[in-house]
Amino acid sequence: MTEFRKWTLAKHPSGMPSADCFALESFTPDAPSDGEVLIRTHYFSLDPGMRGRLSGDSYAAGLKIGDTIESAGIGEIIASKSERFAVGDMVMGGLGWTEALLHADRGLQKLDPAPFDDQVGMTATIGVLGVPGLTAWFGLQDLGQPQSGETLLISSAAGPVGASCGQIGKTLGLTVIGIAGGAEKCAYLSDLGFDAVIDYKAEDNLTKAITAAAPDGVDIYFDNVGGAMLDAAILNMKPKGRIVVSGQVAEYNNETPTGIRQTTRFITHRLRMEGLVVYDYAKQFPAAQAAMAALIRDGKLAYKEDISTGIEDAPREYAALFAGANFGRRLIKTF
Amino acid sequence: MTEFRKWTLAKHPSGMPSADCFALESFTPDAPSDGEVLIRTHYFSLDPGMRGRLSGDSYAAGLKIGDTIESAGIGEIIASKSERFAVGDMVMGGLGWTEALLHADRGLQKLDPAPFDDQVGMTATIGVLGVPGLTAWFGLQDLGQPQSGETLLISSAAGPVGASCGQIGKTLGLTVIGIAGGAEKCAYLSDLGFDAVIDYKAEDNLTKAITAAAPDGVDIYFDNVGGAMLDAAILNMKPKGRIVVSGQVAEYNNETPTGIRQTTRFITHRLRMEGLVVYDYAKQFPAAQAAMAALIRDGKLAYKEDISTGIEDAPREYAALFAGANFGRRLIKTF
Repeated sequence: MTEFRKWTLAKHPSGMPSADCFALESFTPDAPSDGEVLIRTHYFSLDPGMRGRLSGDSYAAGLKIGDTIESAGIGEIIASKSERFAVGDMVMGGLGWTEALLHADRGLQKLDPAPFDDQVGMTATIGVLGVPGLTAWFGLQDLGQPQSGETLLISSAAGPVGASCGQIGKTLGLTVIGIAGGAEKCAYLSDLGFDAVIDYKAEDNLTKAITAAAPDGVDIYFDNVGGAMLDAAILNMKPKGRIVVSGQVAEYNNETPTGIRQTTRFITHRLRMEGLVVYDYAKQFPAAQAAMAALIRDGKLAYKEDISTGIEDAPREYAALFAGANFGRRLIKTF
Repeated sequence: MTEFRKWTLAKHPSGMPSADCFALESFTPDAPSDGEVLIRTHYFSLDPGMRGRLSGDSYAAGLKIGDTIESAGIGEIIASKSERFAVGDMVMGGLGWTEALLHADRGLQKLDPAPFDDQVGMTATIGVLGVPGLTAWFGLQDLGQPQSGETLLISSAAGPVGASCGQIGKTLGLTVIGIAGGAEKCAYLSDLGFDAVIDYKAEDNLTKAITAAAPDGVDIYFDNVGGAMLDAAILNMKPKGRIVVSGQVAEYNNETPTGIRQTTRFITHRLRMEGLVVYDYAKQFPAAQAAMAALIRDGKLAYKEDISTGIEDAPREYAALFAGANFGRRLIKTF
């Protein structure tokens, strides 16, 4: 068999994951046994939310030293001992940071032509139709409980979750305000139809900047960041406001978390804050994906992908997610 | 007319309310106009949750300098120009820290004999059947969403809200763990039927103490305290745990709030945290009060009152609430 490469966990990171936390290993996969397939990865994703798995403090048990780094991926079946998949089938699943892998024939989704066409590409299955888009869809609608006419504030709004959330919010009749860093990201959000954009890098006082953008207050804060930005949002929430905790990218690499200070607002303003694990909605994924694919075809849900070619770049591109470079869905094309 | 006394706001406190924030004024009330009554106060309450109104940063507009300090109270109609109330009627309402007051004939509840009898005294209307008991009732049941067999953790558990919450929790089939300060309070909670009690003054590491008392984790945390105690509870919450923010007594007098650090747990454990304002449930008060009165008669809901006589003690007794002396419903008997 051909030799392939994969990234494994070399050291549990404490703080920002450094290069020596990852090891690039060469390996030759075995031939599939009964009920297995061999997959050649085409694309895999780099997910900030996976950070907790590296330290082993997340909702699922953490990775062990030597485990392949996990991610969503798209690949092609190159050998099969399963009746479910034939050589040449394209599949989507949790493939990991690897060029190839043996996988059981369960837990993989065959990528039939639909929903793909000229407007909805295959990589959308691990982007706007994958975990990022689904997180936006269920977080906003189930936890956010939006009512037409309300005001939605989103942090890390130019990232794949935030940008999806804002556009879905517009289809629901919300006034949508995005927080992002830098003129380029802010211009992108304006192009997407956001009603207002706050460039946090250009603001001395984020609390006041939010007040200026939302003088009547915020009904729903969709939070991808946490820390001081979450506190600034809390101070602008309307009574009965809802805070959707989608990500806490400002916290993932902190050895001592920053947290929030404004907990008394939960009483004075009857606030609700709730965390989201998108897999809780797994049974509703197909319906949501069909609805989002329709929005894409109607031009109401645009998405952006940042694709690097070559597995060797994965750790560097992953670190960039935490340096404010989260702009579009970040994917690795393996060849 | 007779001369009476009332406590008014002399200065907005910053931090712990000091004696010079309050002024004891003598006054002679006018005779009632049409639609008004004159009330002679018998009892009024001292409420930690009223602290925010003194600074003017709470859900209702804050008090102005010269305003009477607000509280629940019980009084007798001593003059009436209203068809709704006759001289001699006993009423309950927001009377304030005053020996007497003119009041419109709206917003007062006439205290008919029921629900009072040998077992349920009149002062219960501003205690276990008033805001403290109702806060426990609706906070636990509406925001806590308890299921029989779950584990409920309560901070400031020997206070009137916490003690009511724990006993209501027992009637719902919950395992109830209370956090309180000192052996006397902990013994009281054991007498009330709490399954476990944590004396936070005797523990070096509250997070570990909670883990020892609830090794399988906490489903509902009913929080009256906030700050580091809230963080310790968060670290012990089960997935899908609910945090009811009833009070934040550790925060009310902080110029810089302490807040919490463990916000990433909201994602990893899908936590929900929600604040409570009991007046949102006003229409359901009579049904809840009837249900709680029945629990009192059945011996399932005991309550404790700390009653001082004399309006002049109110500010000192109020300050004691924040010094860990919150043990039983604290009332002033005016004569």
